[in-house]
Amino acid sequence: MSSKLSAPDSLAALARVIESRLPNKGGDPDASYVARLLHKGPDAFLKKIGEEATEVVMAAKDADFGGDKAKIVYEVADLWFHCMIALAHYGLTPADVLAELERRAGTSGIEEKALRKAVAREGENK
Amino acid sequence: MSSKLSAPDSLAALARVIESRLPNKGGDPDASYVARLLHKGPDAFLKKIGEEATEVVMAAKDADFGGDKAKIVYEVADLWFHCMIALAHYGLTPADVLAELERRAGTSGIEEKALRKAVAREGENK
Amino acid sequence: MSSKLSAPDSLAALARVIESRLPNKGGDPDASYVARLLHKGPDAFLKKIGEEATEVVMAAKDADFGGDKAKIVYEVADLWFHCMIALAHYGLTPADVLAELERRAGTSGIEEKALRKAVAREGENK
Amino acid sequence: MSSKLSAPDSLAALARVIESRLPNKGGDPDASYVARLLHKGPDAFLKKIGEEATEVVMAAKDADFGGDKAKIVYEVADLWFHCMIALAHYGLTPADVLAELERRAGTSGIEEKALRKAVAREGENK
Repeated sequence: MSSKLSAPDSLAALARVIESRLPNKGGDPDASYVARLLHKGPDAFLKKIGEEATEVVMAAKDADFGGDKAKIVYEVADLWFHCMIALAHYGLTPADVLAELERRAGTSGIEEKALRKAVAREGENK
Repeated sequence: MSSKLSAPDSLAALARVIESRLPNKGGDPDASYVARLLHKGPDAFLKKIGEEATEVVMAAKDADFGGDKAKIVYEVADLWFHCMIALAHYGLTPADVLAELERRAGTSGIEEKALRKAVAREGENK
Repeated sequence: MSSKLSAPDSLAALARVIESRLPNKGGDPDASYVARLLHKGPDAFLKKIGEEATEVVMAAKDADFGGDKAKIVYEVADLWFHCMIALAHYGLTPADVLAELERRAGTSGIEEKALRKAVAREGENK
Repeated sequence: MSSKLSAPDSLAALARVIESRLPNKGGDPDASYVARLLHKGPDAFLKKIGEEATEVVMAAKDADFGGDKAKIVYEVADLWFHCMIALAHYGLTPADVLAELERRAGTSGIEEKALRKAVAREGENK
C-alpha cells in the first residue's frame, strides 16, 4: 500500500486489509492484531470502541489545556480504525458510512436533517 | 452537494460545511445543530462522542441477535460526524485522520504497527 | 426519605424509589424522569450510562487542570444513579453489586482477585 | 475483611483498601493492580471507566436477548470499582457520592430534582 494514495482510497484500502483478516478469509489470530480481535468476536472489538472513544475525549480535554492536538488525530484514527473492524465483521464498509453521511448532506442539507433529528430527540425526552 | 461525489470528496465537503458553522466563521447557534454544539464548547460535543460510541455498540449487539445492520451504519455515521465536529473545533480535519491511518498502513504494514502497539500496551499492563 | 440515613441505607432507599417507577409498579412516564427512562426501555438508559461515564472522565480531566473536584462527585453520582435504573429494569439491586464487590474482597483479597483477572485478560490479548 | 460486613460498610472498607494502594501511601505497582493503575495516573483508570461502562451496556444487551443477568452485576461492580479508584486518586470517597445521591433524594424528592435537571438540559439543547 503506497502512501501516495489519496485519502478516500486509503480508507477503502484499509478496509480491504481489515477484511482480509476475517476468520473466513484466513486471518491468523497469532500473527495479526486485527485477526485476533475479529477471531474473539464482537465483545472484544466493541469494548475497544468504548475505550477509544474515551481516549478521544481525554486527548481533546488535554488539548483544551494546552496539550498536543496531534494526540486527538491519533485517537480519532484509533477509534475509526476499530469502527472499521466492527464494520468488517458485520459485512459493512466505510463506504456505507460515507454514503450515509452524504445522504444526510445530499438532500435537504446537513443542518436541516440534524436539526429535525435533534428536535425529534428533544420531543422524545419530554 | 451532489450525491455523485466520491466517498472522500464527500468527507472533505462535509468537513467544510461543519467548519462553516464555527462561531468565528459566523455559525448561528439558533439555526444549526452543529453551530449550537460548537458554540457550547468541547464538553457538549465530547459528551456526544461517548454517547454515540455507546449507540454503535448497542446497534452491533442488536445485529448479533438478528437486528438490522443498517442501524450500525447509521450509528457509526453519527459517531464519525460528531468526531468531525470535534476535529473542526480543534482546527483539524478528517484528512488528518486519514493520513494517520495511511501512515500506519504505509510503512511496515498495518498489522505490524498494531501488533507493536498491542504488545507495548500489554507490557504496560503488567 | 431523611438525610439522616446512613450511606448504605440511602442506597437501598434510592433503589426502592427507582423500583417504584417501573412500568409494572405504576411509574408514570409523564411525571417522573426515571419512569420515563424505564418506560422507553434499555437503549434509553444504557445510552445514558455511556454518556455519564464520559462526563465522569471529563470532570476528572478538568480536575487534573485545577477544576472543582465536586464535579467528579456529581458526575459519579449521575453514573451510579443511571446504573441503578438499569439494575431495577433487570430486577437487580445495588445490594447485588455491593455483594459482588464484597465477594472479591472477602475471600483471597481484592488485589489478588484483580491481579488474577488482569493477568487472565493480558493472556487473552496475546 | 469479613463477608459479614453489611453492604455500606463493605463499600467504605473497599475504599480504604483502594486508598492504601495510593503511591503516597506505599502502594506497590508491582504487587497490586490498583496500585499500578494509580501509579500510571488518571488516563489509565479513566480509560477503564469508559471501557467498563461499555461492558455494562453489552452485558445488559445480552440479558435483553436471554443472557445471564449475573453478568450485569459483575460489570456494574467492575465499573463502580474503577470509579472508586478514580475517587481515591482525587481524595474523594464513595461516601461523597452517596451523600450526593442522598442530597438529591432528601430535599424535594428524587423525581422532582431529576425532572428539573432534565428540563434544564432540554432547554439547553434548544
